[in-house]
Amino acid sequence: MKRVGFSDVKITGGFWRARMDLVKKNTLPAVRDRFAETGRFDAFRCDWKEGMPNRPHYFWDSDVAKWIEGAAYILQEGRDEKLEAFIDGIVDNIAENQWEDGYFNIYYTLFARDRRFTARDEHELYCAGHLIEAAVAYAEATKKKKFLECMLKYAAYIEKRFVTDCDTGFQTPGHEEIELALVKLYSYTGDRRWLDLSRHFIDKRGTSEEQMPCWMRASYNQSHLPVREQRTAEGHSVRACYLYSGMADVARLTEDEELKEACRSIFKDITEKKMYVTGGIGSSSGGEAFTVPYDLPNLFAYTETCAAIGLAMFSGRMQLIDNDSVYADTVERIIYNGFLSSLSLDGKAFFYENPLEVMPYMYTRDVSINGQSLRLPPSRRSAVFECSCCPPNIVRFVPSIGDYFYTCNDSSGTPMIFVHQFGDNTAKIDTSAGTIRIKQKTKYPENGKVEISVKGGKATVAVRVPSWSDGLKIIDLSGARFEKKQNGYAYFAVTDGAVLKINLGMRIRLIEAKPESRFDCGKVAVTRGPVVYCLEGCDNGEPVSDIRIKAKSLRYKDEGPIPGVPAITCDASRRYSASFGDKLYAEAGTAATSDFEAVFIPYYAFANRKECEMTVWVTLKS
Amino acid sequence: MKRVGFSDVKITGGFWRARMDLVKKNTLPAVRDRFAETGRFDAFRCDWKEGMPNRPHYFWDSDVAKWIEGAAYILQEGRDEKLEAFIDGIVDNIAENQWEDGYFNIYYTLFARDRRFTARDEHELYCAGHLIEAAVAYAEATKKKKFLECMLKYAAYIEKRFVTDCDTGFQTPGHEEIELALVKLYSYTGDRRWLDLSRHFIDKRGTSEEQMPCWMRASYNQSHLPVREQRTAEGHSVRACYLYSGMADVARLTEDEELKEACRSIFKDITEKKMYVTGGIGSSSGGEAFTVPYDLPNLFAYTETCAAIGLAMFSGRMQLIDNDSVYADTVERIIYNGFLSSLSLDGKAFFYENPLEVMPYMYTRDVSINGQSLRLPPSRRSAVFECSCCPPNIVRFVPSIGDYFYTCNDSSGTPMIFVHQFGDNTAKIDTSAGTIRIKQKTKYPENGKVEISVKGGKATVAVRVPSWSDGLKIIDLSGARFEKKQNGYAYFAVTDGAVLKINLGMRIRLIEAKPESRFDCGKVAVTRGPVVYCLEGCDNGEPVSDIRIKAKSLRYKDEGPIPGVPAITCDASRRYSASFGDKLYAEAGTAATSDFEAVFIPYYAFANRKECEMTVWVTLKS
Repeated sequence: MKRVGFSDVKITGGFWRARMDLVKKNTLPAVRDRFAETGRFDAFRCDWKEGMPNRPHYFWDSDVAKWIEGAAYILQEGRDEKLEAFIDGIVDNIAENQWEDGYFNIYYTLFARDRRFTARDEHELYCAGHLIEAAVAYAEATKKKKFLECMLKYAAYIEKRFVTDCDTGFQTPGHEEIELALVKLYSYTGDRRWLDLSRHFIDKRGTSEEQMPCWMRASYNQSHLPVREQRTAEGHSVRACYLYSGMADVARLTEDEELKEACRSIFKDITEKKMYVTGGIGSSSGGEAFTVPYDLPNLFAYTETCAAIGLAMFSGRMQLIDNDSVYADTVERIIYNGFLSSLSLDGKAFFYENPLEVMPYMYTRDVSINGQSLRLPPSRRSAVFECSCCPPNIVRFVPSIGDYFYTCNDSSGTPMIFVHQFGDNTAKIDTSAGTIRIKQKTKYPENGKVEISVKGGKATVAVRVPSWSDGLKIIDLSGARFEKKQNGYAYFAVTDGAVLKINLGMRIRLIEAKPESRFDCGKVAVTRGPVVYCLEGCDNGEPVSDIRIKAKSLRYKDEGPIPGVPAITCDASRRYSASFGDKLYAEAGTAATSDFEAVFIPYYAFANRKECEMTVWVTLKS
Repeated sequence: MKRVGFSDVKITGGFWRARMDLVKKNTLPAVRDRFAETGRFDAFRCDWKEGMPNRPHYFWDSDVAKWIEGAAYILQEGRDEKLEAFIDGIVDNIAENQWEDGYFNIYYTLFARDRRFTARDEHELYCAGHLIEAAVAYAEATKKKKFLECMLKYAAYIEKRFVTDCDTGFQTPGHEEIELALVKLYSYTGDRRWLDLSRHFIDKRGTSEEQMPCWMRASYNQSHLPVREQRTAEGHSVRACYLYSGMADVARLTEDEELKEACRSIFKDITEKKMYVTGGIGSSSGGEAFTVPYDLPNLFAYTETCAAIGLAMFSGRMQLIDNDSVYADTVERIIYNGFLSSLSLDGKAFFYENPLEVMPYMYTRDVSINGQSLRLPPSRRSAVFECSCCPPNIVRFVPSIGDYFYTCNDSSGTPMIFVHQFGDNTAKIDTSAGTIRIKQKTKYPENGKVEISVKGGKATVAVRVPSWSDGLKIIDLSGARFEKKQNGYAYFAVTDGAVLKINLGMRIRLIEAKPESRFDCGKVAVTRGPVVYCLEGCDNGEPVSDIRIKAKSLRYKDEGPIPGVPAITCDASRRYSASFGDKLYAEAGTAATSDFEAVFIPYYAFANRKECEMTVWVTLKS
């Protein structure tokens, strides 16, 4: 299977075009301003002195690197002299402060020159990975090579220390990231040594030769077993998904069946036992981690934004390995829900954690002490975080969303093009049989009608039939013939100039979780197509927990209480608190109830108005 | 209103007799053994030296004092030379180590001789209070005066330092207790100076003259306002209820209307906004405290055993102020549920916290770190605690349960006797018109039939009609005439030799919480009479959260899966997990369900078999 990168997928309109424009217009500058205010760019001058504000932290390199990567993706759609000049300045700082031997790290250069590569969990290789990803992206967008050359030199130094000399204080990074970054470096340069170096780090992890000391348990950074023996998702969920992404890359590129099998099992473990209905993962704030199966509390869900991105990355790589729609279904679940919730509608504020239930009173409950007896995710998005991994991750993820739309199987005679995601776009897919151009026209996810045009030659087009769909309906086929449905894809044989008009049959669907997901028992989630909806207190009054909805009355509207955002309404009822008089408890069924129209909004749009209660899981009226 | 103490109420059989016997036979010696093992008795020799095990803690005096108090209550029913000799030994230690000036405290004597009464939150007056209560109880039971004399001397020293000399580092204790203890000293000795000293501490609290420094907020120990201005229950819930009990005592004995009004408001705030259906209070582990109204999470309920006892104490005192059944209803709710759950059925293990929901998997969720991302109450009872306030509090509470059965209004001509609690007992109530003897015969709480015999003269007998009752039904009256129902009591005019046969009409009742109690929305609690029931995993399979019960099929049985403990069964259903296949989420209503017979046991009996899930609040089948 061949990757079809976002550089070849032009998002021309609709849902994702609007988000990409927003990120370019608001998010990129907002994150830049916050980073400038907190000294993250200045830090690259490596001239910080005691007494100055904004002491550089050991993961700041990665924050800025992700921002540059996002900026580079935006530059691919249109160069911008001012923005490039700004980035070139940072690149100059990197070049000036890179060590003679190739090493670069702000924190270690300033504070720990004598102990490079001795502390497993101080993010040197994590930062290196993000710098490499940024350098590749910037080279791709601008053809400027300075940043990339710095990073090639750094990568060579890493190879020398970790492989050739083998004289470092640890053998695999405490926070994975460099594995997948080195694969990107390999893909861009074609130099196999970077793929080998990536595999080196993957092969060493969790083996007896590896020095494992870490401040948490070995599973925290997936070092509890050699990765090929791992079958479940464990530990810090961002670390985990970055590793799994690197594993999937290496497995595919080296045709390593053992590694593929580990990836498949871990993916199943995540999506069948450890994933919220929003696609969020990593339910525990302790260790920002995966926990035991079916441990999915809604109120204190941790569900870090970076973890959602990480799972999308892992899923996207898995869809290059197996032709099974479960991977693209998962990407879709994430991008429309647990990822998208992290960004405010104005593009300037961010969730680090994405809970599925919010009760603002809970933040006021510790009235007699200052501590926190119960750790809860914040109920409001922030413009900036001390640990600011998530905002720049959003900056790079949204402009590269096109990465997830297509893959191509070019191994047999007729190229086989998989259509994973839907949205207005034009794609250019180079195959051994020539370039195939795909064009999608759709209002997705407003409805499920999609028109797919194919130009450039004969091909097989495999269109994903989403797991939420009752089945793909053919409206009209021109120059195309339906062949089969297999593993969640509808296969069409197409000729040059073919047009497929299909309908994925979008309707409101109530979803239940498996009984083992104890916090969801007795409740349903309202969904429509890929979008999970929620109830907010500002539309429905509070407490939202007491609302009971009538399933049969659910109605979809293109716009609800938030301009430009759809809504689902329905007949609902709640109990009158006044029926209880002064009493806290009363005989069941004696309270009067009031009927009202409940309003659901997409989960991704919650917390954009005043602070209020929110819940994804609701009770049905009997 | 006059108190009818447990010394005058002989529990002759039934539910409470069994518990009293259990506490005497098992709990008293179990707690003694644990205290002996941990050096708590030896500490009274005040000869601990560095390097020895079991360094005395500053609240150990109170642990032992409560145990002695409980032992004394048991001795009231039958002397025991060996037990008395053991206690006499401790009393000798106290006498030997009491300071010349009257002061006694193990910790300060050993470690902090120079700073007596300087640290507000190091429990000196709290320990003094418990020692005073123990001394009064021991004098009452044995007529031995040595302990009491020591404590009278100590009380005089406290009066000197806090009132006469006024030279202490704080003016009111950081942990209340001495206020109610001094009232007991007053009641036993008749010496008004102890009542005045109690009032002194109550009056000073929260005033501008009081030095307030404490390691938590002023509300933590109810010092945020002068107590007469307080209208809501705030802060550490045990501290709070001990204070409110002292306030109610002083209000009644000094006819202080302002103080009574504060007590009434605070009581309403607790029972109408901050009390679990089990009578548990103090929902937050942070500060072991009351929080904001309607904040009653079940899974992470703190609900300390001592707080339940404290609320029973406060309620019992309020029933001496107002003739309203709400106080005795509250006592009943506590003693059959949130208090009784603290003691294992074998009488040897204890809950400090009494959650309303247990999910054992939650204890295993922090798999990648050693910390606790979520603080949860233990799911199993312990034989011993580092902070061991609860076990000896159980030891003293159960033998004095008779305290809550009756009060007497002797102000008008005919004595008016209130029957608050039900159970086999004989009571001797001294009134100005002579001694009235009451005898109850009942199988309560197995059913609601009660026979009350009255001997000794004319009286009005007011029988509580519990809030869960549909109304008191008269089976037969002999020598008695029904007069009226008022504020939850049925009033009967009785003559000497009268027998009242009544039925309180016990049935299974499903209870709902007010909508504001968000964690209970959409759910019901199964109750029968005063007893709240729960579902345990070992009877019903897991997860219990997915069980839906058929309301109309609920059936009561005198004995269920636990010998001697009743049960309620009903038709129920749950979803087949297998219906979901590998999927975590599926369309609502598509899963197959299985019908089974659900078994509820009394909440007080949970966690007596293997560790498993438990829930009080359950979902009804539509």
